[in-house]
This record gives sequence, C-alpha cells and structure tokens, in this order.
Amino acid sequence: MNSQNSADKTNKAIYDRACNVLTGGVSRNTIFRKPHPYYVASAKGSYITDIEGVERIDFANNMASLIHGHSHPAIVDAVTDQLQKGTAFTMGTEAEVAFAELLIERSGRFEKIRFVNSGTEAVMTMIKTSRVYTNKPKIAKAEGSYHGTYDYAEMSQTANPGNWGDIDKPNTIPVVEGTPQGAIDDVIIFPYNDIERTLNILDQHANEIACVLIDPVPHRVGLFPATNEFVEAIYNWTRKNNSLLAFDEVVTYRVNYAGAQASYTVNPDLTALGKIIGGGFPIGALAGKSEIMEVLDPRGKILRHPHSGTFSANPISTTAGRVAMELFDEKAVLSLNTLAMKARYQIEESIKIADVPVSITGAGSMFRMHFQANAPTSYREAFQTKKTKDLINEFIDYLFLKENIIMINTCACMFATTLTQKEVDRLSEAMLKGFKLFKPKLEQLSY
Amino acid sequence: MNSQNSADKTNKAIYDRACNVLTGGVSRNTIFRKPHPYYVASAKGSYITDIEGVERIDFANNMASLIHGHSHPAIVDAVTDQLQKGTAFTMGTEAEVAFAELLIERSGRFEKIRFVNSGTEAVMTMIKTSRVYTNKPKIAKAEGSYHGTYDYAEMSQTANPGNWGDIDKPNTIPVVEGTPQGAIDDVIIFPYNDIERTLNILDQHANEIACVLIDPVPHRVGLFPATNEFVEAIYNWTRKNNSLLAFDEVVTYRVNYAGAQASYTVNPDLTALGKIIGGGFPIGALAGKSEIMEVLDPRGKILRHPHSGTFSANPISTTAGRVAMELFDEKAVLSLNTLAMKARYQIEESIKIADVPVSITGAGSMFRMHFQANAPTSYREAFQTKKTKDLINEFIDYLFLKENIIMINTCACMFATTLTQKEVDRLSEAMLKGFKLFKPKLEQLSY
Repeated sequence: MNSQNSADKTNKAIYDRACNVLTGGVSRNTIFRKPHPYYVASAKGSYITDIEGVERIDFANNMASLIHGHSHPAIVDAVTDQLQKGTAFTMGTEAEVAFAELLIERSGRFEKIRFVNSGTEAVMTMIKTSRVYTNKPKIAKAEGSYHGTYDYAEMSQTANPGNWGDIDKPNTIPVVEGTPQGAIDDVIIFPYNDIERTLNILDQHANEIACVLIDPVPHRVGLFPATNEFVEAIYNWTRKNNSLLAFDEVVTYRVNYAGAQASYTVNPDLTALGKIIGGGFPIGALAGKSEIMEVLDPRGKILRHPHSGTFSANPISTTAGRVAMELFDEKAVLSLNTLAMKARYQIEESIKIADVPVSITGAGSMFRMHFQANAPTSYREAFQTKKTKDLINEFIDYLFLKENIIMINTCACMFATTLTQKEVDRLSEAMLKGFKLFKPKLEQLSY
Repeated sequence: MNSQNSADKTNKAIYDRACNVLTGGVSRNTIFRKPHPYYVASAKGSYITDIEGVERIDFANNMASLIHGHSHPAIVDAVTDQLQKGTAFTMGTEAEVAFAELLIERSGRFEKIRFVNSGTEAVMTMIKTSRVYTNKPKIAKAEGSYHGTYDYAEMSQTANPGNWGDIDKPNTIPVVEGTPQGAIDDVIIFPYNDIERTLNILDQHANEIACVLIDPVPHRVGLFPATNEFVEAIYNWTRKNNSLLAFDEVVTYRVNYAGAQASYTVNPDLTALGKIIGGGFPIGALAGKSEIMEVLDPRGKILRHPHSGTFSANPISTTAGRVAMELFDEKAVLSLNTLAMKARYQIEESIKIADVPVSITGAGSMFRMHFQANAPTSYREAFQTKKTKDLINEFIDYLFLKENIIMINTCACMFATTLTQKEVDRLSEAMLKGFKLFKPKLEQLSY
C-alpha cells in the first residue's frame, strides 16, 4: 500500500484517490454514498471501524453475505491453515467434496452441487442448465427481483411506472442500455405472488419456458415471502409444461436451516446459492436434482454443457464456507431468526411510538422497512418514487453518520450471529430517534 | 472435514465420495481425468503433493493463474494480516484503491478499473459496457478462442469440422446446448490472424458490432500471438465503424510487464483481466478508457450500466493481487520469460533428438505443444481430431503419473516465478522420454 501520512487517511482523501483509478471511485455501486463512500480499517464481529477511527454496528453484513459477522475466529483459523497449503490448483481438493457433502446432507433436497465464483455465475449456470435440460430458450422471472448481472436474469429488475406496462402482461425492461433485443425477447415477466396473472402469462409461452426463476423472499421486490399457493401453482405449471422450477436462494438460504425452500410444500428442481455459503469469500453454487445436473457431467459422450472456472471450488472459499455453515446449525438459525424477530418487533414499537407511516416486511433473519403505512404486497406497491428514494438515502445517511448504524440502502437489515440484544436495542433506539426526526418528511410522502 | 482414517485418503476414495455430491465428481471440468482426478494435500512454490503423498512439479499453475506458484510467503503474510481485519464489507477498503493505482501505473494504457469476481464476469462486463457505449447489439470474436462462460463470449470456442462452415463466413456455433438463437445471431465469428477474411466479415455487419473481442495469444486457438498487422487492421476498422477494440487479457496479461497489449502499436479500448492479478484468489477486472468506463459511474443522472457484486473488489483478492503484481516487476517478467524461452528451446531439442512430429507455439511465459510437425497458424490448423485428443490425454497422463509433471490438458505450460533451471531440466528430460515412448503413435497421427 502506498505509504501515506495519517493526514491522508481520511475517507474523503481515499475517495479522491479512488476517483482517479476507479470509475465513479467505486468498484461496486452498493458501497457508493454521497459525497463519498467510507473505508474500512478493520472489523470484528458486528463492529466495523473506518479509517478515521469511527466504529459502527453492522446490520448489512456485506449485503447479507456474512452470517457470522466479521473475522470469525473459527473461519480465520481454518483459512489461515489452508493458506499454508495453497489456494488454487489444476487439481481437486477434499475441501470441495466435504463442503458439497455438508450442503447436501443439510438440505435434504439437493442431490448434486457445482461450485462457481459468485451468485451471478450461479444464476447464469442455472439458466443455462435449464435450457440444456428442457431444450427451451426462454425464462420467466418476477418483475423487480434481482438475480445478479446476467442479462437474462436482470430484466425488469428496475422496471418503473413509465415503462413497466400493463400488470396483466408486464413489459420486459432491460437493466443495462444496449441489451440485445434477442435477450429481451427471451425473458417473460410476471407479477410476483399473483397466481392468476402469472399462470395466464406463463400459458402464453407454454412451450418455450426453460425455467421459472423465483427468489422466495425477493429483497428488491419488497422482501416478503412467496406464498405457498404461489410456489405450488408455479411448480404445478412447470410439471405440466416440461419446465423447471429454479430457486434463487443466494440471499435467502439463511432463512431456514435448509433454505427458504424448506417453507414450501414443493421443491425446486434447481437452486442457486451464494453469499453466506462462502464464509466471507467469493462463491456461488448450483444445486439440484442429479438427473438435471447431469448435463454438466464431463464424463458424458457429448458435453452438453461444458463448464469450468479458474477459481471455482477453490479450497479457501469451500473451507471458509464449510466452517461457516457448520457453525450455522439448526440452533444457530433458530436463535438468529428469533433475535431478528425481536428486532423487528422493537422497531414496530418504535414506529407506533413515533407514529410514522412506516411498515416492515421480511423473513427469517432479514427485514426491510418501507416508508408507507401499509406493508407492500407487490413490487409495484413497494416501488419507490425518486422522492421516496431520496428520503430513504437521507435516513440511511442519518443512521450511518449520526447513529453509527450500517444498514442496506433499501433500509434493510440482514442479521449475523454476532449480533446480540445490546445491538438490537441500539438499533431500535436509533430508529425511534430517526423516525421522530424524520416524521414531518415521512408524513409528507403520504400525500 | 469428515474425520476419516488414512485408508480412506486415496485419490480414488475421495473421488468416489465426490461422485455422490458433485456432478461427475468435479466442480470444474478442467481437473477431471480418467479414471479419477487427483486431490491436493498441500503445495509450495512449484511443487504439489497429493493426498497419497506423491509430489509433482506444477507447470499448469491453476490454469495460468498463479504467477508465483503456491503459498508464496509474501502473499500468505499479507492475506493472513487482512484476515484479522475482515474479508468483505458493505463499505470500501483502501486495498481496492491501492491495487487499481498499481495496475494503472503499471499499464500506462488503462485509465479506469472496475473489479469483478472472475474472468467470466470481466468479459461479460466488458461486452455489456461495449454495448452501452456504442448502442450496438452484436460482438465479433475469433473462432476457437475461449473467453469464459458468458453465452455470447463462448460461441464457436469448440467449433469443429462438422459444423464450422466456410472459412470466408464461419458459422456461429454455441458451446452449450439450448443456447437461444437470439444470442447466436448476435455473435459474428472471424478467423484469427486472417486480415482479409476478418475485415470482409466485419464489413458485412459494420453498423451492428459493439466490440471486436480479441485474446492476443489465444490458448485454445493454438497459443500463438496475434500479428501486429491483424490487431492494427481490426483497430482501424473499429475506428471507422464506431466500434470498440476489446482485449481479453485474462490469461495473457503475464506476457509483458504491461500485458500482451504492450506488444502492439495500437491500444485496445477495453481490457478484461483475471487469473494472475488475483494472487491466487478469485478476481476479474475491467480496465479501459475513462470515457467508456464512465457508463458504469454510479454518480450519473441515469444509470446506463448499473453494476455491483457482493464480493467484487474484496480486500483479500485485491491485497493478494497487489502483492503478487508488485513482486511481478519488470525484472521478474523478463527473467520468467527467459526461463520459459529456455524451456521451449530445450523441448525443441528433445523433439529433434526424438525426431517426432511435434511443434511448439507460445509467447512470454506460456507455450503449448502440438502433435503436428509444422506449428499451426490458425484454429482450424490446430484443431485436434478425437484421435489426436486421445493421444494428448495419454501423453499428459504419462507425464502426470510416470514423470510427476503437471501440465495443462492441451499440452501447455504456464510458468511461475518459482520455477528454476532444475525444474526446466526435469521437464525437457521427461518430454524426451515421453517423445521416444510415444514416437510410433505420434508418427501414426501424421497419416
């Protein structure tokens, strides 16, 4: 690292340097905030200290990816040990086998796994695998839901009232300018949790849909769970139409011991994983039925889906992930969900006391606040106008700068096992202060 | 890890377990070999010991990704230190800034960087960025060249005589079954290093091509460099037709201090990086001109290319990468290339002594053997029939099992700075023995 005197170690100074070498000064839009992002010096458990020495409580956990907070000793120890043995080889390691065994035993629903490097790669591989298996070109996904940056997976994630079209047949809206029309034409959009409309839409493309892609608790839609009726209806539709049910559990695998999918009476054919299963290191995984996963088998006479990846299944990510998931056992899941529920309850109390038009949605160890009195039940209801978005940013900044609380920029919390009642109390007190302070602005939004 | 007694610690026993949980028993086709892959116990420098205690010399370096071999002490130390401070945050770190500064200073050609998690992600982001900037839907790429697993980037990577079509207008052949026709239609294929045909083909799609994607020393095409005339001709074509020149240097950045691109009189607009820049950890990066990279800027009024990634620019990969690239200074590049050249020369001697129809291609610290007397100059010339492929596998197995030498399965070596004259001598001796042993089979191939 460049030697700098401490006067140069301000968040603004680092960002000024960053602007010379990184587009917009960041490598992930997630960390951007005005007038500049903040830079971490060190982090332990649920506390992050920035380079100016300010300590904050972390309720974001790197976008839900750290189930045990920062620098967990058991993970640090296991990785430190593996470091001495190497980090990547043109050969296998027992680490990938042991971790796949753990995930399959844990899930009870997965038969085979393939590791990749990110959630984006996991969803891309899931979609490609679905196309091979069904020999169909299109996918269907929910309006507003985020599934990484693969063109097909990201359609309509940011659809807005100006372009989303009729709810009976939502437009397919690309996220990135210049997305080829061919990709747009191959994605069907349906309204989340709306059984009748979704089935109608799917029926119009009955012979073309390789998979129906679902995040069972989609953060960007509004962070409320898919109903069992909805998932069942789609499952039944896929059985009738030789299509696959593909779950994106990159974020939601934390919801139950065996993932959010354990909440439903039917099982997905394929599941994309990522985030917490890496124990803080880059990872993604595709899990599913043997019969379908077989299209990836390198022993096949014809390679139907040739697939590799330089860092896929590397022993650092698979070791860290295994330790993290071993620690996140049934008891840990239960106690984390209980703590998150407690926090949600305390924030609901804060909302009542401050008497502000705010609602909460969520599942398991995740929840999200909405600046509207009634909790949204659809993407279009949860959609934020520019005015709302600006107010949320202001509120998030208030929490970050004045209350030393780190939250996801949608006003969401993704808990880690290192949080305790103490931090939850700090959170609900901070929220109460914030709600009182922002009350006039919050009430104005309703008009 | 499951506790096992040592009798269970055979490569076959691990693979048997793997087959129950991983499709085909592997998570990367690269590591697969018949009847089973081999599993690493530990690795140091250029030596890997498998779980049965067999030590081998590593000339593959995890598919060219480890420029300093395994467990380099400076990288281990830096990562061990960062581990104590955390591995990923919803905030920035100075590590990403310092590393971007280093890469930009080193290159002299890059103006801005964005980090991602893999070479696949880097190429995908490069293609998407090209489409935004030019507002054109298609890309052009070379027949046979590998650019990761994004549908558009992987077209015609495995084209064969049965489907590749007329060399004047090569067919676009998808790698994965079920690839949508829309994606196929958006990729134009040209024959590498063939200026006249390539320009003719590009001209037929002059208004539609967002970028021409080139790996300057494409491993799968045959591992020979693009000629300066070829690169210049494409560069000039892109200037005339409002298109971008996009280099995939995920593998080739090792060739010169400032990448293989430093060998040419013209500069690419965008460059995808990966492999060695991660210091053994998952990484990818997009580098290029500020004006183009700006489409990713989160400060824009309209987000033209919204983009994030949970583990992008994480401080482990950027710290390991910075240390690795600092150590890979001008002197180290020169001395590594000299050693690889020496190895190539010694193997050429072995070929002469054994009098076998084998040729070598390569650049910098990489070379590849071809089981044909004259070095191929095109993908179609380098293309291996099933018979050739089987013989190469047999030869690679011989080296691995009898000579304890690890090579890439195309019969290629990607050197690391931990190799010395001693290992090079072992390599050329082993090759000589192998060539003599395989001579009848090698000669038979020529008929």
